[in-house]
Amino acid sequence: MMAAFTHQLRVYWEDTDAGGVVFYANYLKFFERARTEWLRSLGFEQQSMRRQDGVMFIVSHTDVRYLKPARLDDLLQISVEPRDIGRASMDLFQQARCGERLLAEGQIRIGCVQSSSQLDFKPSRIPAALMAALQAKQP
Amino acid sequence: MMAAFTHQLRVYWEDTDAGGVVFYANYLKFFERARTEWLRSLGFEQQSMRRQDGVMFIVSHTDVRYLKPARLDDLLQISVEPRDIGRASMDLFQQARCGERLLAEGQIRIGCVQSSSQLDFKPSRIPAALMAALQAKQP
Amino acid sequence: MMAAFTHQLRVYWEDTDAGGVVFYANYLKFFERARTEWLRSLGFEQQSMRRQDGVMFIVSHTDVRYLKPARLDDLLQISVEPRDIGRASMDLFQQARCGERLLAEGQIRIGCVQSSSQLDFKPSRIPAALMAALQAKQP
Amino acid sequence: MMAAFTHQLRVYWEDTDAGGVVFYANYLKFFERARTEWLRSLGFEQQSMRRQDGVMFIVSHTDVRYLKPARLDDLLQISVEPRDIGRASMDLFQQARCGERLLAEGQIRIGCVQSSSQLDFKPSRIPAALMAALQAKQP
Repeated sequence: MMAAFTHQLRVYWEDTDAGGVVFYANYLKFFERARTEWLRSLGFEQQSMRRQDGVMFIVSHTDVRYLKPARLDDLLQISVEPRDIGRASMDLFQQARCGERLLAEGQIRIGCVQSSSQLDFKPSRIPAALMAALQAKQP
Repeated sequence: MMAAFTHQLRVYWEDTDAGGVVFYANYLKFFERARTEWLRSLGFEQQSMRRQDGVMFIVSHTDVRYLKPARLDDLLQISVEPRDIGRASMDLFQQARCGERLLAEGQIRIGCVQSSSQLDFKPSRIPAALMAALQAKQP
Repeated sequence: MMAAFTHQLRVYWEDTDAGGVVFYANYLKFFERARTEWLRSLGFEQQSMRRQDGVMFIVSHTDVRYLKPARLDDLLQISVEPRDIGRASMDLFQQARCGERLLAEGQIRIGCVQSSSQLDFKPSRIPAALMAALQAKQP
Repeated sequence: MMAAFTHQLRVYWEDTDAGGVVFYANYLKFFERARTEWLRSLGFEQQSMRRQDGVMFIVSHTDVRYLKPARLDDLLQISVEPRDIGRASMDLFQQARCGERLLAEGQIRIGCVQSSSQLDFKPSRIPAALMAALQAKQP
């Protein structure tokens, strides 16, 4: 099992709704920010991968449970834990916490596609360098 | 089985991302707009329910697959189909289509909570009038 | 003076913040939706203009006052009134109302740019067909 | 003149639109994040001010120019520079930069209102402790 990467972020006005708490759909944004920083921590930038490798990542499945509310000014920890890495897709387990409090968690499936195929995403292999970096993290 | 309610909406700049398509998290917003209009079609407004019945709905689970991309100016049809209605929660099946093209679909679980319980959502029964309206739609 | 075009929209959860009202930055989204529908009412779609004319519109200046709050479930009327139309840009006056209540208003400057010039927007003439449609609306 | 406070942030997918660049309305979000961190740097949290002082800040006027596009993965510096501080409102000058590149800039007017007055914002004096902190920063 791979260790979880953690990204920290603050809850701002833009993230809340009239219920006084973080709008649930925004956890998908928080999860995405953490995945972007996790890729960056492995040495990969999505903009560069698009130019150099001609691939981009799309989200194909999100299965998320929203457990506790978060509020304005809360400082959240968002984790990324790779669970299953295939040739053209990967499953990540992600959690949002505020200290000890588990706010939301779920599985996110990411697909690697040809960045030129904008009308109908065509699967593409995960670039070899990224695959090597992902596997180097495994025990 | 209940018939599906459908809400139509347009894709604007705000809904897209640099991939040139609708940002996947926004399907959760589209699904929410459709649920709000579905409740309205049954005669219920969430703001009024909060004041009169002291309850509000929260989303506790979203399990969504993103199948095809949508683009700027596309006109989408978002459906709501109640699948399982409990005393304090319900499961809805929702789809986003652009004409014949199925873009995204999934199950959304909605919980009914006391609107005063903002720090830790406390379940509450779905108001009787809404429950009656939901059951009247069943065969 | 040209008559104002009006687009109607509903306030959903996604539009509100923890203050219980519409998040002010979202009026810029509402104004944009109205401009898109206004262009459509004149017979122009931005996606098609990008492909056919090689141009797109960018927002270069927004000067907006936020006067009264709007709430969940409110039905808003968003107006678009062209004020000054140049060769490569135009100034529009826009208002957001909820019935008689003026919520926000301001001037939005739109620039027409070459859609290929993504790193540094290069001004481009407003396509002749659109210019003709805009002028036909003037008294 | 007061020195500018600077907040740094990353551009993620959620911030971009189909033009391939940051959606202009999102600069208002970036400016807001920077103001929140600026208040925090002075020792003030908006959630606490709401509870303890019964006041909250609303944005009443934004006058912003969008000069250059920002892209996915760009690291932005957002500044906050108080320009005019009144008893119940203040004008701030804010800029968004990516290194040497000025992306957007403008004036934001913030009003202090009674947090209980949700239907019609009632102006309130800026709390004395915050006023003192603001003045201590002036030359």
